[in-house]
Amino acid sequence: MSYLLNSLNRQLSLLSSKVLISNANLIREIETVKVRPLLKFYSVTQQPVSEKMTTEKTLPKLFKFVDQNVESYKNLLKEAVAIPSISCDAKHREDCNRMVFWMRDKLKEVGAATELRDVGYQTIDGKEIKLPPVLVGTLGNDTKKNTICVYGHLDVQPALKSDGWDSEPFDLQERDGKLYGRGSTDDKGPVLGWLHAINAYKEIGEELPVNLKFVFECMEESGSEGLDELLMNKLKPEGFFDTVDYVCISDNYWLGTTKPCITYGLRGISYYFLEIECAKMDLHSGVFGGTVHEAMSDLIYLMNTLVAKDGKILITDIYKSVAPLTDNESKLYDSIDFDTEAYRKSIEAYELLHKGVKEQILMHRWRYPSLSLHGIEGAAFQPGAKTVIPGKVIGKFSIRLVPDQEPDEVEKLVFDYVHKKWAERESPNKMRIWAQSGRAWTENPDHPHYQAAARATKLIYQTDPDMSREGGSIPVTITLQEASGKNVLLLPMGAGDDMAHSQNEKLNVRNYIEGIKLFAAYLYEVGKLAK
Amino acid sequence: MSYLLNSLNRQLSLLSSKVLISNANLIREIETVKVRPLLKFYSVTQQPVSEKMTTEKTLPKLFKFVDQNVESYKNLLKEAVAIPSISCDAKHREDCNRMVFWMRDKLKEVGAATELRDVGYQTIDGKEIKLPPVLVGTLGNDTKKNTICVYGHLDVQPALKSDGWDSEPFDLQERDGKLYGRGSTDDKGPVLGWLHAINAYKEIGEELPVNLKFVFECMEESGSEGLDELLMNKLKPEGFFDTVDYVCISDNYWLGTTKPCITYGLRGISYYFLEIECAKMDLHSGVFGGTVHEAMSDLIYLMNTLVAKDGKILITDIYKSVAPLTDNESKLYDSIDFDTEAYRKSIEAYELLHKGVKEQILMHRWRYPSLSLHGIEGAAFQPGAKTVIPGKVIGKFSIRLVPDQEPDEVEKLVFDYVHKKWAERESPNKMRIWAQSGRAWTENPDHPHYQAAARATKLIYQTDPDMSREGGSIPVTITLQEASGKNVLLLPMGAGDDMAHSQNEKLNVRNYIEGIKLFAAYLYEVGKLAK
Repeated sequence: MSYLLNSLNRQLSLLSSKVLISNANLIREIETVKVRPLLKFYSVTQQPVSEKMTTEKTLPKLFKFVDQNVESYKNLLKEAVAIPSISCDAKHREDCNRMVFWMRDKLKEVGAATELRDVGYQTIDGKEIKLPPVLVGTLGNDTKKNTICVYGHLDVQPALKSDGWDSEPFDLQERDGKLYGRGSTDDKGPVLGWLHAINAYKEIGEELPVNLKFVFECMEESGSEGLDELLMNKLKPEGFFDTVDYVCISDNYWLGTTKPCITYGLRGISYYFLEIECAKMDLHSGVFGGTVHEAMSDLIYLMNTLVAKDGKILITDIYKSVAPLTDNESKLYDSIDFDTEAYRKSIEAYELLHKGVKEQILMHRWRYPSLSLHGIEGAAFQPGAKTVIPGKVIGKFSIRLVPDQEPDEVEKLVFDYVHKKWAERESPNKMRIWAQSGRAWTENPDHPHYQAAARATKLIYQTDPDMSREGGSIPVTITLQEASGKNVLLLPMGAGDDMAHSQNEKLNVRNYIEGIKLFAAYLYEVGKLAK
Repeated sequence: MSYLLNSLNRQLSLLSSKVLISNANLIREIETVKVRPLLKFYSVTQQPVSEKMTTEKTLPKLFKFVDQNVESYKNLLKEAVAIPSISCDAKHREDCNRMVFWMRDKLKEVGAATELRDVGYQTIDGKEIKLPPVLVGTLGNDTKKNTICVYGHLDVQPALKSDGWDSEPFDLQERDGKLYGRGSTDDKGPVLGWLHAINAYKEIGEELPVNLKFVFECMEESGSEGLDELLMNKLKPEGFFDTVDYVCISDNYWLGTTKPCITYGLRGISYYFLEIECAKMDLHSGVFGGTVHEAMSDLIYLMNTLVAKDGKILITDIYKSVAPLTDNESKLYDSIDFDTEAYRKSIEAYELLHKGVKEQILMHRWRYPSLSLHGIEGAAFQPGAKTVIPGKVIGKFSIRLVPDQEPDEVEKLVFDYVHKKWAERESPNKMRIWAQSGRAWTENPDHPHYQAAARATKLIYQTDPDMSREGGSIPVTITLQEASGKNVLLLPMGAGDDMAHSQNEKLNVRNYIEGIKLFAAYLYEVGKLAK
């Protein structure tokens, strides 16, 4: 999952070109890593195809194979983690390209036809920087089989040991049954999970129960630049999605640490840039303090009008379009396994909102909007005692959108409210506000696709998965829904405490290995769905 | 002048070690620049000493020499500006050392005895980084002459052409009678002004009318680390200040662009760090938004309680200890030459506070406290749409102190007020506030030292200088006052629109050249004061 919003880049290209890229470098000539044949990683040699297995025996045999290859799976993840494919830093663009090529070679080894699709350039500090190609693949074209389109990403967030990691972030390390490393759970582990599941079918001499299509990008953590354009304006017209029956994304996490879930909803996001200008340059607070209307005090005033201390959003009418809570939905929360005290402790928060009541916490993550104040661009941010009066500052805040909030409507409410508060301020300074938004996503969790995934999950974890939603946003979900017109499902591999994007990101060995089996079982179950 | 406060490091070493140093590097071995003999820069050869000049003829002759050497002065400033002695960036520590050695060699060439005084280390990100040495010098020890201690600094603020400079900041360029370059006016031009004034006496074969002591540091823009300790606990006990009669600092600017001034007062500063913590790490706003008490909204709430939109400080009783405005002082402002509209235009502000009334603007720069909100550490500050919920944020604000505000008393008022507002907030989060402060400074502008400087100024600019104060803070002023026990005077060289610390910093050729003459005339006038 991404901290950044992709949003609908086609509509909102504003600012998309400078998303968190701090060091623009021209990309050096791309160098691919030496390809090591995948088979060498698996200790069990190929089964003779002559031995015809019944479908009932397929999965037990496959699970056994998976259990016998744990070390190989860990080693391959270690190899993937070692490529620092940090998409927000142009200095690592070459690593992103290497990562894409590495995965392309792996897909080829399991028999997929692959293509590297050029998605053009991004502009950073006025320079055009080539985007990493998107890896598109196809495996199987049996018209009698269902076809699943799998999405994943190969890029990662930045990480330095000095940020507070216990071991080098790009050197996967196992401690206490956990694999620590940047990208272990987000999203290299899950992406490799698909590869291993496919390979396991191949190795035990079984046909894949479905056809597969792959979309693996390497810019997800940086707004998925170029991807929407590729999906909607190239792959879709070219017919890439014509045969697709289902879409599956594994780029999120369990709700907690023990019970699996399947995710049928994500909040959207409406991200605001609130700019105040008081002077054409930064000013010395000794020289100018006491004589100018400071932009910072205007901005702090406006930012203070947005959200109450109990988390209630103060924007007029913001809750009006939120879908009403039905009795049926209300009951859903009762049975969900979620320990709010463990949740609180995991982040060492002093107290949770809503008195930490489970149902309220879940509803405020999933089905109610939330407003967060992220920071201020243009003001002092360094350690130490900088005494600047910033000439221009941009406050950043965002609202997580839920059904039935429409981004356009929410943006208008926010703009109207901020302009009203600004008029009340009677400041001579200049104010400007703009937004980038993407709508919330939900699917019907009763769809046969979800039932198939639930059966697969129960087979692996011996429990019915929670049908969950997530507070975050994965904008590509909506794009894939639009491009394919088919049911989209999020099938998480990792646990709720994996700390994606944070220090000591990890993937439990159990989640990795059982996740491979889960993916294999999911392919199997979807294969059984009526064509 | 510094954006940073040095404050009384002896008392308040808190945080002093991490003032704005973003990239800690170990200092590489120091390399001195090749010394070019200073004399080569002056086109007029030395006068025969045999020709005895009357003192009345000294200054006209000296002024003529100065006018004949304009190109040499520009070239030497270009050479100094070319050394990027950026003190806040440890990567430039070697350049700071080079700059100190360069100036040491120049002082030696005019006959001064010099010493490089070690002031130890600073700690950056846990690493010990050697501070640049302080250059201490002595020229003359005639007990019949007065002795002036001159202070200046050799370091500069960071600058990149891409910040919006019209030419390379470290390549001094002349356009329209202005010398553009980082450090041109702050403070390399004034420091070289002393050198040129002394050299001019030497070149025309005249004895210096005073003895001189020099203190040139290279950490002024980064809190003058180590300097107070050196001045108070080493130089003072060693007797360095025993023979000093007067202290002169040229590190500020005229009030406007045409009329010279002498500065007898500076505001102090009380800088606050207001920390709120809601979680042990940064959180994903999608996952946690709506469930945690966000530190940012608490901080924004508190920062919004500090200052009203008309600039009035809202801290209870903060104005109580401000020295009352007497009729006499009130009248002083009437005659001061200050164009508020030009002041407003120079920063392209939309409107000034206090309706732009001259007397009010001056009083709020000089004699009333002001509160500025500088920024937030720990929050998103980058361009783009980062959707973080910061776990811990530190708001930065400061109050410029005036007579008779005592830092301890002001800090207590602020702490009490913030704690009161925090209690009203009823947040479960953790709040902490701490401060770094230095008191305001004023001298008696009727002192003979000031009269001597006024006579010198009138001789050069044919007008009585304004006796001005400044809104900013130069903490070393108070330290030098304490260390020497003598009258301290600020004698600016540059104009009010020189844009120190900002893009396109410049020094007018006129201010530079007439400033050299002013310094020479000042030495002459102080030389005439009764010993």
